[in-house]
Amino acid sequence: MKKQLKKKIMSSVADDLEQIEIALKHSLDPYLELVQTIAGHILFSGGKRLRPLLMVICARMCGYGNNDLIHFSTMFEYLHVATLLHDDVIDQAKMRRGKKAAHHVFGAAETVLTGDYLLAKSLAIAGETGKMAIIQLAAKITEEMAQGELLQMINQRNPHLTETDYLTIVQSKTAVLMQAACESGAIIADASPDILKAVSNYGRNIGIAFQIADDILDYTAETHILGKQIGADLREGKLTLPVIYTLQQANPTERVFIEKIIQDVHFSHTDFEKLIDIMRTYNSVNFCLDQAKAFVEKARKPLMVIPETPEHQILYDIADFVVARDN
Amino acid sequence: MKKQLKKKIMSSVADDLEQIEIALKHSLDPYLELVQTIAGHILFSGGKRLRPLLMVICARMCGYGNNDLIHFSTMFEYLHVATLLHDDVIDQAKMRRGKKAAHHVFGAAETVLTGDYLLAKSLAIAGETGKMAIIQLAAKITEEMAQGELLQMINQRNPHLTETDYLTIVQSKTAVLMQAACESGAIIADASPDILKAVSNYGRNIGIAFQIADDILDYTAETHILGKQIGADLREGKLTLPVIYTLQQANPTERVFIEKIIQDVHFSHTDFEKLIDIMRTYNSVNFCLDQAKAFVEKARKPLMVIPETPEHQILYDIADFVVARDN
Repeated sequence: MKKQLKKKIMSSVADDLEQIEIALKHSLDPYLELVQTIAGHILFSGGKRLRPLLMVICARMCGYGNNDLIHFSTMFEYLHVATLLHDDVIDQAKMRRGKKAAHHVFGAAETVLTGDYLLAKSLAIAGETGKMAIIQLAAKITEEMAQGELLQMINQRNPHLTETDYLTIVQSKTAVLMQAACESGAIIADASPDILKAVSNYGRNIGIAFQIADDILDYTAETHILGKQIGADLREGKLTLPVIYTLQQANPTERVFIEKIIQDVHFSHTDFEKLIDIMRTYNSVNFCLDQAKAFVEKARKPLMVIPETPEHQILYDIADFVVARDN
Repeated sequence: MKKQLKKKIMSSVADDLEQIEIALKHSLDPYLELVQTIAGHILFSGGKRLRPLLMVICARMCGYGNNDLIHFSTMFEYLHVATLLHDDVIDQAKMRRGKKAAHHVFGAAETVLTGDYLLAKSLAIAGETGKMAIIQLAAKITEEMAQGELLQMINQRNPHLTETDYLTIVQSKTAVLMQAACESGAIIADASPDILKAVSNYGRNIGIAFQIADDILDYTAETHILGKQIGADLREGKLTLPVIYTLQQANPTERVFIEKIIQDVHFSHTDFEKLIDIMRTYNSVNFCLDQAKAFVEKARKPLMVIPETPEHQILYDIADFVVARDN
């Protein structure tokens, strides 16, 4: 089913993805080769290009077909990758997309500065759109993502993190970017406020669904498919929905054990397996998956106010895909 | 003479500085208190506010007097401080403006993210100006400053760095920001291309003069006045004009000694004193001061094409001040 869905989406957007790939290479023009190398290390290592794609599909759904669309859409991949570079330095992550994280190859300082470059690049492209609303949006979500990441840091290894806290973090650090990509598609097409709102709600909700699915994968995926070690979130002290829910359900003995593992930077493989067992007892993964699917439903609904176009189906499929993916 | 010059400038711009100070406090509105704390740590610790002031004076010289000017000008202080936060993490600097550097108080990750927030804040304010040229400029110089800092890193402890290399780094990491502050003042005032060019040249040249003066202070100032330890640049492996020039003049024995101290992260106080002695032999500080003064002259000249206003004198005085300051 996953494969079929992926194939279906790919058959609709293959051309766009190819053009986005070319534009990403073309627009990256630092004068320093090192910036090119570090940015290229993460940019061209199999990203899904979901964020630029969202802008492209939403713009087209709203009737925009100019050639510059693909170029504009790259701003969301550059911004995404800029935050990944900074976050990996901050989380001291080891791997990203199946490769050594950039800071392990090129150094933390070099990686932070390349992130700054990409962040600026993204805002420069926002400027090229000539749309003040897109520029303001790009700046605003950059502020928000930095704060979302900080909020996550502040709550590192905090066993009292609630589902609501978790959703606030997810909203700030992940959902706003997909939301902004969709909104920018509508803005560039001069869509009406109603349509802008619908597209914005779609983006936010698939963003949340995407992050929940991502957080589930950290407990269920196979390392070689995920491109990084499972359990990495917990090792970094990040409490995500599967653990938060399990903590809610756990009996006192289990709770003591889980709180211990949360505090333990070097927990053993056996301890991790034991946590997975407790998760199984409470069907935590299924609970999270249901939550993610609920956000997918919330994402699909607003689109119904917009007159039907071929792009609708692609957006529906993408919404389904964000919870069906395995990496 | 220094004190008189400072007093003279202050008497002309005291009101502006006060308003900039208020605007910097007012515009900083993160939802996370931690961002407020970290940003406040560096923002409100005695910065000279030179960059926003340059925008204000240049705008007024070009006939712009709207109330929003002060608010717009804060973008250059936020951008400046964002780069300081990132640079201090990267250089592992210990002190800044007489206080412990932010990352030593709040942690490197928190400091990088606060830098990201301020960078985005700066671009958001650029967006508020409604001037596409200012937005493009802000994004472009952010790209350039990141690359300038990287270029400096790549050349850490490189005894073959030339004066030309040094000026390229100074241009990218320091001068572009003052240049952009001046240009933005002209742009907001809808100044003619000729005036824009003149103001731009003024900004670039005082930026270079400023950095040379800064690099001299690292060898001549008193720690309690400078707000950080002298010799810090060399300890971080940063080769600046005083050392580059001394290396050019040095005899083979001296050269071997200087190259050794450049490579030595933990050079002794005695070694540093010996370097200062060699610098004295070749009058290196005076050579650098003359270079800085030459850039001040280059800065003053372009202003002559602009019809005389009271702001001219302030800009002349600021140009003199950047090489006469002691911190």
